[in-house]
Amino acid sequence: MKRTVGVLLFERFELLDVFGPLEMLGLLEDAFEIRLVSEQAEVVDSAQGPRSVVDDYLVDHHPYDLLLVPGGMGTRREVENQALLDWLNHAAGRAETVASVCTGSALLARAGLLDGRRATTNKNAYNWVVRQGPKVEWQPRARWVEDGKFWSSSGVSAGTDMALALIARLCGIDRARQVAHWAEYVWNEDSTDDPFART
Amino acid sequence: MKRTVGVLLFERFELLDVFGPLEMLGLLEDAFEIRLVSEQAEVVDSAQGPRSVVDDYLVDHHPYDLLLVPGGMGTRREVENQALLDWLNHAAGRAETVASVCTGSALLARAGLLDGRRATTNKNAYNWVVRQGPKVEWQPRARWVEDGKFWSSSGVSAGTDMALALIARLCGIDRARQVAHWAEYVWNEDSTDDPFART
Repeated sequence: MKRTVGVLLFERFELLDVFGPLEMLGLLEDAFEIRLVSEQAEVVDSAQGPRSVVDDYLVDHHPYDLLLVPGGMGTRREVENQALLDWLNHAAGRAETVASVCTGSALLARAGLLDGRRATTNKNAYNWVVRQGPKVEWQPRARWVEDGKFWSSSGVSAGTDMALALIARLCGIDRARQVAHWAEYVWNEDSTDDPFART
Repeated sequence: MKRTVGVLLFERFELLDVFGPLEMLGLLEDAFEIRLVSEQAEVVDSAQGPRSVVDDYLVDHHPYDLLLVPGGMGTRREVENQALLDWLNHAAGRAETVASVCTGSALLARAGLLDGRRATTNKNAYNWVVRQGPKVEWQPRARWVEDGKFWSSSGVSAGTDMALALIARLCGIDRARQVAHWAEYVWNEDSTDDPFART
């Protein structure tokens, strides 16, 4: 079964939040098809400048097996974007797995999707993210956290470690390690090993 | 001084070869301006699918302080693209620093830029790359190699380690470590520490 990965893009998304995970998922062409999704813009600027072309729009309501929500400075504005939060709720309800990177968990939190669940985020933006979800059980020490179908990673690079763990879950540990080897990536396989923990 | 980074894109470039380094460089907005460059296409497909919008074209002959050449399956075709190799020679001649990631060093080698120099590449594609530059002193064990103004990294993820070393050289070690911390990236600071070495 080939899974469709929907990646939410918004102005000032963080480059590596998106393209670290997509490098790893994209190396398994037979397992994942990648679709970039935005609210309206055909071309979306990253926080670092480089621009991406999207494939789908929120109004299309395409179903995605894996929904990936990045962080970046743009999340500061998008937490107030009710149309986007409504879409997240709808898309998450249909997805097999929902994964956030960095401050992307602030968007899931504001959509109410993480209430009563364990989740984590970038430790550099920890206090701001925590305020977006007072009912979330925020974890100050975790490279990534899995709670039911919701996965969330720490800052930026942690998303790549989480993506490999997702591949391990969906495709087996051998394929995840093979992908890391192809990309000459030293995978931190232990979700509790957080070199940037708050405490 | 703000440096201009020119990143060569071609069909089927490797996502993380480009966006790992650009995450790190892009976090220093005051130090680097990023420009994506292609031969003719306004939109370039990565090897993993996601598409990027370019800023400049080869015929513009914009000067770049730092020239970044990624790898990816597309290099198998581009090593035969004489117009692109000629442009690389011209652009490299004007650049302060030229850096390749993964099989990007095959393009530099075919352009003759690495003759008599030490360089490295992806260990998974090592034999093919070595054949592109019989006069290059290829290094089978190196996370990245610096020889004069030419830097080359091993596969995919190694480019991110090299980019931080470039930041350390151009902006100081403290800023490089700060950037790695912001991105929650465990930086391999030792260019000789190559977990994927051939020997």
